[in-house]
Amino acid sequence: MTRIGIIGSAGRMGHALVAAIAAADLVHAGGIDKGGDPTALAVASDVLIDFSSPHALEATLDAAATAGKPIVVGTTGLEERHHFLLDDASKDIAVLQTGNTSLGVTLLAALVRQAAASLGPDWDIEIVETHHRMKLDAPSGTALLLGQAAANGRELALDSHKVSGRDGITGARTAGDIGFAALRGGTVAGDHNVHFLGEQERISLSHLAEDRSIFARGAVKAAVWLCRQRAGRYGMEDVLGLPA
Amino acid sequence: MTRIGIIGSAGRMGHALVAAIAAADLVHAGGIDKGGDPTALAVASDVLIDFSSPHALEATLDAAATAGKPIVVGTTGLEERHHFLLDDASKDIAVLQTGNTSLGVTLLAALVRQAAASLGPDWDIEIVETHHRMKLDAPSGTALLLGQAAANGRELALDSHKVSGRDGITGARTAGDIGFAALRGGTVAGDHNVHFLGEQERISLSHLAEDRSIFARGAVKAAVWLCRQRAGRYGMEDVLGLPA
Amino acid sequence: MTRIGIIGSAGRMGHALVAAIAAADLVHAGGIDKGGDPTALAVASDVLIDFSSPHALEATLDAAATAGKPIVVGTTGLEERHHFLLDDASKDIAVLQTGNTSLGVTLLAALVRQAAASLGPDWDIEIVETHHRMKLDAPSGTALLLGQAAANGRELALDSHKVSGRDGITGARTAGDIGFAALRGGTVAGDHNVHFLGEQERISLSHLAEDRSIFARGAVKAAVWLCRQRAGRYGMEDVLGLPA
Amino acid sequence: MTRIGIIGSAGRMGHALVAAIAAADLVHAGGIDKGGDPTALAVASDVLIDFSSPHALEATLDAAATAGKPIVVGTTGLEERHHFLLDDASKDIAVLQTGNTSLGVTLLAALVRQAAASLGPDWDIEIVETHHRMKLDAPSGTALLLGQAAANGRELALDSHKVSGRDGITGARTAGDIGFAALRGGTVAGDHNVHFLGEQERISLSHLAEDRSIFARGAVKAAVWLCRQRAGRYGMEDVLGLPA
Repeated sequence: MTRIGIIGSAGRMGHALVAAIAAADLVHAGGIDKGGDPTALAVASDVLIDFSSPHALEATLDAAATAGKPIVVGTTGLEERHHFLLDDASKDIAVLQTGNTSLGVTLLAALVRQAAASLGPDWDIEIVETHHRMKLDAPSGTALLLGQAAANGRELALDSHKVSGRDGITGARTAGDIGFAALRGGTVAGDHNVHFLGEQERISLSHLAEDRSIFARGAVKAAVWLCRQRAGRYGMEDVLGLPA
Repeated sequence: MTRIGIIGSAGRMGHALVAAIAAADLVHAGGIDKGGDPTALAVASDVLIDFSSPHALEATLDAAATAGKPIVVGTTGLEERHHFLLDDASKDIAVLQTGNTSLGVTLLAALVRQAAASLGPDWDIEIVETHHRMKLDAPSGTALLLGQAAANGRELALDSHKVSGRDGITGARTAGDIGFAALRGGTVAGDHNVHFLGEQERISLSHLAEDRSIFARGAVKAAVWLCRQRAGRYGMEDVLGLPA
Repeated sequence: MTRIGIIGSAGRMGHALVAAIAAADLVHAGGIDKGGDPTALAVASDVLIDFSSPHALEATLDAAATAGKPIVVGTTGLEERHHFLLDDASKDIAVLQTGNTSLGVTLLAALVRQAAASLGPDWDIEIVETHHRMKLDAPSGTALLLGQAAANGRELALDSHKVSGRDGITGARTAGDIGFAALRGGTVAGDHNVHFLGEQERISLSHLAEDRSIFARGAVKAAVWLCRQRAGRYGMEDVLGLPA
Repeated sequence: MTRIGIIGSAGRMGHALVAAIAAADLVHAGGIDKGGDPTALAVASDVLIDFSSPHALEATLDAAATAGKPIVVGTTGLEERHHFLLDDASKDIAVLQTGNTSLGVTLLAALVRQAAASLGPDWDIEIVETHHRMKLDAPSGTALLLGQAAANGRELALDSHKVSGRDGITGARTAGDIGFAALRGGTVAGDHNVHFLGEQERISLSHLAEDRSIFARGAVKAAVWLCRQRAGRYGMEDVLGLPA
């Protein structure tokens, strides 16, 4: 049974990972937090999952590479130099870095890109997301990720086509725009819906998270998958066997 | 068979009314436009439908009252003095005035008011609408009508609780807000969805127009219904037998 | 703070009630199970919630009536004689009996009845529900409750108009039918959607449960509400102030 | 401007094609029906669209091949020998044969296959469709086409995994099943929704036809595209540039 070590074990994601490891009948090899030593954990684990901070990344990657263990990195706030570190480590070990560990969202993004690439520019793209009442910003990071997938499919820059928070006298829709709308309320874990609105027909591609456990579950699935891969750099889409 | 006369017969709504009258196996008694004389039309009709302009309203109501014929008024842009004219005419004839002749939207508004009144303030209300790419403003008039129904149900003022076009760093949702979001694209005739988002459960009340014929069809249904009513002032909710 | 006693405390619903009582900052006055004595519990509680078995109902109601404490009864499988017992007890204490303690479903049923009563018979009614892959029967009890609400609104018998599991050569839809469809999969706690399909327009009234905690939460809300009521028999719609 | 000739011009699809050709600013080169001679039509057209009957197919293909003109075949009820004729003609001319000329449905089927292939078998697949009250059978041909796409993605036979019209005591869901449900009512032109229901998350891929004009519009788009292709056999997915 795969032994999984957790970097950043004290936070909400750390607890969720422990639960997901148990639910999948895998072994929790232990965890560390700020100031902890990753070396022993890497040795005791078959694979590491890191949801800590960018500051710790260099030491963590060193420990993983020295022990020859693959690592899933879900840490946010990475800068260019962190990506160089990831590239470097990926020469020795399998490294999967991602900003979203949900398998469903990963698939949805791939389908959105495919749809945007196949459908002509006369299909208008609108993205609407719903989250709980405590969320502080809009649109959600996942909505932007889906918008980027749509923009990639159309081979255009999202920044110059993004329209968010439509209100008042807007004028007719500009061809090529990608619209965003955000709903807030209740305890919604996260709904995302990408609409392609054409002449007398519509396609909608949507994802609904019943709770936030899906991110930990996806990270654990990615970790198990990563154990079977050779050294290199991977993303969540590789876990699903999707074209890059 | 009911004979229906149309005030404002040349525009898009006029044509849609003629089609709806034919589809319902009723008699189109004729139509007039700017400068036309409503007197003869009122005499030749069992009921009038007016989708013209506020300027013509006084002469039209005079003709209807003189002939003793009921009238459906869907004209937009009415001011206070027009409502006085309508009240005055309603002493002699049955007058139904409305800003939205869709039976479905009328029912939805009543259900939204009921839901908002029954559910506690810990259910957040969010309204999202979708319209075709040529629509010039947001949110739609129907979305605002539904928001007003929700505010009425909660006995609060919509203006001080309306949040439209959420975008950027919004902070957590303020309790009591009624949110609006607008999607634009394709040829969508009009979708409206009112969400009540509570603790671990959600209620959604929605209306979808397959095309814009529903407004003419609703006006014709209202006209037929109005023929059986005594003098007085009515709204679309009366056609459906809804509580005022 | 309201003290709530639980009859049937060992099962899944009992545990969910304890959690809901804690989340609402109320007092869990204790619980009993098969063979337990309800008398002491009734004395120590301000209100009782009973999710046990019909066999225990008589003793439970006696204890509640003797102690003069209101009681919420969510026990299923009640027969006519149990309803006589409930009626009898309601002369002395406030008794709320229901087959579904979700406030959202209760409201939805009221809205469905209103919609079915207001819309003419030319609006077709279709009910679709989704539940997790382990559910053993179809349609769900809640779907049937919603269908009954629709039938009540139309003043017809559900049994003679129910169509479930449409498949194969069905012929055209019979006017007045109420259709049911069931989807099964994943971990869906319960989606219910009632469609009213008319000429070129549609109304959909839906409820989504994010998890099963809503039934315990609704029962606790009902219990708190019931403490303020005089002797009599009540249903969940009374908690929401809905017309009977 | 592309000149389009119609085989089967008298029926509803024929009229819809004429309207779609006009709306796209193309030239309607003429049409024939049962007993008509396709030779002159093929000469006068840049491309043919055939929505007639299998009986006429051989003569139609001969005329197209002799004139060297591409042809879109949307005729239903084709048997194996008709497919041989199509293969044969495709050596000389571009031939696109399809059972569904909607671009949206074609794309949806490709996305469903991709999703079914990427997501593990622990995601349950359920397909629900809604059509107008006059439809005589269930599930719809398009729903079956989407189910076939899902089965192809999973590399299993649809026939042995299809569950339609779930009703009564069904037992728990069998892993690998593909469920179908059909709603009927009103004037719905065609909604199709394919759900992938996983652990605490769901993906839904859906198509909504606002009216039936989309089939004619798609056929005309396919015809224009086909004019630029070399001899060979094509499907609608080629028009969208989708992987076979």
